[in-house]
Amino acid sequence: MSHVIENKKKLVSRIRRIKGQLEAVERSLEADADCFAVLQTLSACRGGLNGLMGELVEGHITEHVMQNARSPKSSQDKAALELIKVMKTYWK
Amino acid sequence: MSHVIENKKKLVSRIRRIKGQLEAVERSLEADADCFAVLQTLSACRGGLNGLMGELVEGHITEHVMQNARSPKSSQDKAALELIKVMKTYWK
Amino acid sequence: MSHVIENKKKLVSRIRRIKGQLEAVERSLEADADCFAVLQTLSACRGGLNGLMGELVEGHITEHVMQNARSPKSSQDKAALELIKVMKTYWK
Amino acid sequence: MSHVIENKKKLVSRIRRIKGQLEAVERSLEADADCFAVLQTLSACRGGLNGLMGELVEGHITEHVMQNARSPKSSQDKAALELIKVMKTYWK
Repeated sequence: MSHVIENKKKLVSRIRRIKGQLEAVERSLEADADCFAVLQTLSACRGGLNGLMGELVEGHITEHVMQNARSPKSSQDKAALELIKVMKTYWK
Repeated sequence: MSHVIENKKKLVSRIRRIKGQLEAVERSLEADADCFAVLQTLSACRGGLNGLMGELVEGHITEHVMQNARSPKSSQDKAALELIKVMKTYWK
Repeated sequence: MSHVIENKKKLVSRIRRIKGQLEAVERSLEADADCFAVLQTLSACRGGLNGLMGELVEGHITEHVMQNARSPKSSQDKAALELIKVMKTYWK
Repeated sequence: MSHVIENKKKLVSRIRRIKGQLEAVERSLEADADCFAVLQTLSACRGGLNGLMGELVEGHITEHVMQNARSPKSSQDKAALELIKVMKTYWK
């Protein structure tokens, strides 16, 4: 999973941020905090998770599905780059 | 776009069904119909569009991104099939 | 459905735009056009539908769920405005 | 936030499950594990978060937006129940 190795630190820190948000939601629930604040934090969590998912799917396509992502010549590789463009609308 | 040619009739009829739902929403708005009925039809429309999008993306992967979808031996083709499995969670 | 009556013209034109995009997809499929172009148009369609859904849900909340959207004093109305803020993350 | 107090234990355990899934993703990334396994766990995480968000939004509507969720007579409360039905399509 070379696409992970290269930016592992960045990916792990994104996961920790989402985990931190979840822990904030847990504390709010335990403290019967304001419902709206909980919903806002959870929404941010959801956005973070969507973005992380998008980045990992993109990495899966470039590193594992494509034949040569650094110099995409084949019709398959060009179609894979098109796929990434279309999928971005799902995790913006 | 052979994946389209094969089941063109089916895809076109799905589009026409979604279009019919949109026309129903248009008529409801014109007639100041019940808001809830409009929202329900629009939700059905959204579900139909998501499903159609999923089918076309899957076809794009098997027909254009993969080297040999009918007999997937390469690591790239296996990774492409994994991608389809993961993406299904987006258009169920 | 006063929230519709007021901006009916705008809502109907949004629906017609989405319908136009769907018709373009239908023509592309019939003409075995480029798969990527079809996927891009369908993505735009999906975005338009999501936005339209968001606007109608928001109108449903302000016009039918709230007691007084023009001067929201009650705790229920304030909670409804919070709900709209949280829901916006679903149709951006 | 009475809707939380009543089923706090259940909500907190759902959060902990999602957190556990995130921790599994973190360990997999650290160990350069299989990309597909990471994507599957993240998808499960996303599904869990969507479901949790849906439950909390529903609770926000019944407990804070509605006047009397236990005996919904007003047109506002009926419109709120309609809203819940429409929104369910977003977090299934």
